[in-house]
Amino acid sequence: MIATDVERLTRAALSRLAEPGDVRLTSLVEQLGATRVHDLLVAGPGPAAQGDRRDDQGLADDVATRLVSLDPARELEIAHRQGIRFIIPGDVEWPTGLDDLSGAGALHERGGVPVGLWVRGPARLSEVTSAVAVVGSRAATSYGGAIAGEIAGECATHRMAVVSGGAFGVDIAAHRAALAVGGLTVGVLACGVDRYYPQSNADLLRRIAEVGALVSEAAPGCAPQRVRFLARNRLIAALTAGTVVVEAASRSGALNTANWATRLNRVVMGVPGPVTSETSAGVHEQLQAGVMQLVTGAHDVRELLGRSGEELAPQRPRRRDVRDRLAPRQRQVLDAVPVAGAVPVDSVARVAGLGLLEVQASLTRLARAGLVQQEGGGWRLSGLARA
Amino acid sequence: MIATDVERLTRAALSRLAEPGDVRLTSLVEQLGATRVHDLLVAGPGPAAQGDRRDDQGLADDVATRLVSLDPARELEIAHRQGIRFIIPGDVEWPTGLDDLSGAGALHERGGVPVGLWVRGPARLSEVTSAVAVVGSRAATSYGGAIAGEIAGECATHRMAVVSGGAFGVDIAAHRAALAVGGLTVGVLACGVDRYYPQSNADLLRRIAEVGALVSEAAPGCAPQRVRFLARNRLIAALTAGTVVVEAASRSGALNTANWATRLNRVVMGVPGPVTSETSAGVHEQLQAGVMQLVTGAHDVRELLGRSGEELAPQRPRRRDVRDRLAPRQRQVLDAVPVAGAVPVDSVARVAGLGLLEVQASLTRLARAGLVQQEGGGWRLSGLARA
Repeated sequence: MIATDVERLTRAALSRLAEPGDVRLTSLVEQLGATRVHDLLVAGPGPAAQGDRRDDQGLADDVATRLVSLDPARELEIAHRQGIRFIIPGDVEWPTGLDDLSGAGALHERGGVPVGLWVRGPARLSEVTSAVAVVGSRAATSYGGAIAGEIAGECATHRMAVVSGGAFGVDIAAHRAALAVGGLTVGVLACGVDRYYPQSNADLLRRIAEVGALVSEAAPGCAPQRVRFLARNRLIAALTAGTVVVEAASRSGALNTANWATRLNRVVMGVPGPVTSETSAGVHEQLQAGVMQLVTGAHDVRELLGRSGEELAPQRPRRRDVRDRLAPRQRQVLDAVPVAGAVPVDSVARVAGLGLLEVQASLTRLARAGLVQQEGGGWRLSGLARA
Repeated sequence: MIATDVERLTRAALSRLAEPGDVRLTSLVEQLGATRVHDLLVAGPGPAAQGDRRDDQGLADDVATRLVSLDPARELEIAHRQGIRFIIPGDVEWPTGLDDLSGAGALHERGGVPVGLWVRGPARLSEVTSAVAVVGSRAATSYGGAIAGEIAGECATHRMAVVSGGAFGVDIAAHRAALAVGGLTVGVLACGVDRYYPQSNADLLRRIAEVGALVSEAAPGCAPQRVRFLARNRLIAALTAGTVVVEAASRSGALNTANWATRLNRVVMGVPGPVTSETSAGVHEQLQAGVMQLVTGAHDVRELLGRSGEELAPQRPRRRDVRDRLAPRQRQVLDAVPVAGAVPVDSVARVAGLGLLEVQASLTRLARAGLVQQEGGGWRLSGLARA
């Protein structure tokens, strides 16, 4: 699919109309296409539904009026002057990872492929092929900040893009560490990419826009709101090969990102901390539930992301090798063990003409090598030695 | 099997003769019985084996001489006067968990059911039915000591016996916390139970002997040696329903206990810590390998030990319940979804006579309840709704 100008204008209008990740809109667009949804919404609901539309709050009665009054061409023009572009599915820059959001369901009524992304900065999202999300508590401890920095810095050094949410705490520690090593970092915001929120991170966010990219599903000018954070988290998960949660209290927003990563079959990682620390409690819960893999630093993260999806066939030792490597006296013991029917250790010793203790030690070693096995208190050759 | 006096004397002699957990001896005794092994050892190896017995070091050439020169009756008498008893398989007090060591293989050449246990203290080992091992680094941090104390204290309060090795660090913190709440604690030593090692723990070990039990596979008078620690670890694992490792560096002895617990199908638990702490690195490795379960405190430990082996059948919602609970307008949507062949959302909306956005929201909810499903961009009833 090549994105047309009409498609882009339609999607820009829908992006302005609806909340980010409004699952009703995103799933309609996935099923019917943006243009058809636009037309159906402008036409309004059929006469049978005029009586009661309590389920349609938010994208409700005035949808048609609002859609018609929008001027997406002018929006895109203003954005362009601010160095902001609006990318949509079919664009060369569109990150294909986002398409995995189709059919991935919803969390907190947010979900689906975004109708488009507002992007600011020189980094091309399509070129972010190896990316890791480093997220966590806004109220990170110094421990969490240090670990986030270690992971982000080392991953960025190894040419991975570090994606995070630009928030206080873990997020900004990750961005800062990636910038510090001259690496690529992408901030996925809950507000418009023309805003630097939170204010205290403004300098760093501005720097990300200069050398990396700021990304948002929310149109320029939008303020950060709770539902926008929840919608934003799914983009962080979808844009990356894996998500590392550095610190997160129980029921924290960072876990929401991890839940999305799980749904999207991304690698989901958690850094443990002291069990006495409330900001690690959420990570520990997820590790216990088995939905996160424990990582202790960048080394583990890189290993998990490097080998994800790859399954090496286990190496099996060949029988000849094992037997050939036996010491002469061990082969003497092996030769004294019958092929069929098990015999007690003392009769093996008698046949081998060796001491009881030596024979016992040899049998234990041979059993470990898979050449003999115990059966009803006696010893016999295993299938491996008979073959 | 009822233990006879002859059996006890024989096993006392073997206990004095061999190193704790010498896998050659323990496996011979398991296969042939203590008396037959004793007699075979006194008789010595056959003539064919006289030339070279390099595999028999430790229990070597002078075995027969040493066995004959032992006076186990006198040993038991002296032990008795020191308040030390020697229990063997078949005794009422014999902890049946130790029998699981039979066939569990060897680690570092140690393994098998001990030929007997030397016990000092009022606690009856057979009555230790609900026991947890709390082990960890000798070089525990204040964090590790605090967590060990929390887990041991709360488990002891809930009538679980706390078993550990009496060593510095995590071990002694666990014993101390159990004693502090008036709970039962058992120290499994690498030296004879007439010795208090390490010296700095002497007061606490003496107290354990007064109100709990000190236990050892090594005969009275034996000094603590490396192989005895390794042999000891398997007893800690076998005597308990589960082992908690609080802090352990890579390749630490506490992990040896955990390995034994794994082999014995006990519950193996690990407490995470800061990834910057070397004394937590071994625990993190085992958690990563999936051989330990992550616990954050006594609550988790008690839950895992309480439910170990128990498997609750998953509760399945009954179809009638789900459908009956639907709101009228949702049932209206459900009725508009065809049984066979999927249709797009707008035709469901047309049939239902409801607005597109409401129908989309309803379908999403119905899908979550398992009543409808998406198929090729359309919607159809799921098997659950058709049944």
